[in-house]
Amino acid sequence: MNRGWFITIEGGEGAGKTSLFEKLAHKLQEAGRSVMLTREPGGIPIAEKIRSVILDREHVEMDARTEALLYAASRRQHLVEKVIPALQRGEVVLCDRFVDSSLAYQGHARGIGMDEIWSINHFAINNVMPDLTIYMDISPEVGLRRIQESEEREINRLDLEKMTFHERVREGYKILLKRYPERIVEVNAERSKEEVYHEVLRLLEARLEGITDSTSKSFTINNLKTGPE
Amino acid sequence: MNRGWFITIEGGEGAGKTSLFEKLAHKLQEAGRSVMLTREPGGIPIAEKIRSVILDREHVEMDARTEALLYAASRRQHLVEKVIPALQRGEVVLCDRFVDSSLAYQGHARGIGMDEIWSINHFAINNVMPDLTIYMDISPEVGLRRIQESEEREINRLDLEKMTFHERVREGYKILLKRYPERIVEVNAERSKEEVYHEVLRLLEARLEGITDSTSKSFTINNLKTGPE
Repeated sequence: MNRGWFITIEGGEGAGKTSLFEKLAHKLQEAGRSVMLTREPGGIPIAEKIRSVILDREHVEMDARTEALLYAASRRQHLVEKVIPALQRGEVVLCDRFVDSSLAYQGHARGIGMDEIWSINHFAINNVMPDLTIYMDISPEVGLRRIQESEEREINRLDLEKMTFHERVREGYKILLKRYPERIVEVNAERSKEEVYHEVLRLLEARLEGITDSTSKSFTINNLKTGPE
Repeated sequence: MNRGWFITIEGGEGAGKTSLFEKLAHKLQEAGRSVMLTREPGGIPIAEKIRSVILDREHVEMDARTEALLYAASRRQHLVEKVIPALQRGEVVLCDRFVDSSLAYQGHARGIGMDEIWSINHFAINNVMPDLTIYMDISPEVGLRRIQESEEREINRLDLEKMTFHERVREGYKILLKRYPERIVEVNAERSKEEVYHEVLRLLEARLEGITDSTSKSFTINNLKTGPE
């Protein structure tokens, strides 16, 4: 399979994932790479319809396992219709959240269990795993403060409850870092956006040599498995 | 858990599953049992919406694994909202098709693999398995002829193609019979409806002693595990 590169970004709220990936996509395009920036359900009609079932407010009775299966179904369709064809065209696919979000949020923080969540996602992904995952680490307090500063309000009781939940999410990501040390790279996201951006650029260069060099037609890979895991 | 009995019926097209289960439900009600006759999605709004995504004719591009995950999600919600509460009330739940259909049709006949389909259904079911499954065995030729007789038309090329598929489905059920000999009972469905009905009644009596006896307030179980498998 003629294959591009599949890079995902993960982390809690307020870590700055989305804006970092937008900036990175721009930089890679300037270097002449074909880049596809996406996130699930990514405009895929079937995946969008599945997501609308998940988000329907009438569905107060939705079971946590039903929800997990629907997320896996939406992931599968997005992967098959959008991600895999782009990889086959040799593009760099930047995907905002992927399987690690389900493992950290539903598997660990919601308590279904990471191995359980992995079993249905393994079925959905069928061995198409990211070549590289950037984990943006931020303490829930700092992440929450950032969100609040942008919304200009005080911390309330609900926020504090959320904090415990987001501590669990962070714990989940830390477990994943230990489980997949070759695939996931941790970045300290509590620093300024500029600092984080330059660290991630250096990191990409180290892992995917030549990716940001506009004079290089291709790039080679250091310290990365060349196929899906 | 105060628990009723969970009985499922399986088999190919034209085997007479639906009419047999309706007759059986009537008989058990006459004997004073609380019976719930159901099939997925069973009027559960979330499960119905999931099913409508599966059946949407615009979705020509739906991947087989996406579809399998959606069936598992619909199954989960039907189980949680309808089957488990009825079992907890001590009712006899008669469910027309359940996990074995996914294993035989998608796992074996469509070629995804039974173990793969089992992994996502195991997640969906979370150990609530039928106490007894009645497999109505019929050769695809006989099943097809029955359907055609009711529709008054000749066998065509499409029917013959279907026949190969339904041979694979039957093969799948035969594998399941070997895998779960304590749970699944095979019934020869090529005989008259009356003969099949009386055999299934005898079989239920042998497995669930007193179930059809209106003078018996409860029934005991022979040769059956008392909890979920």
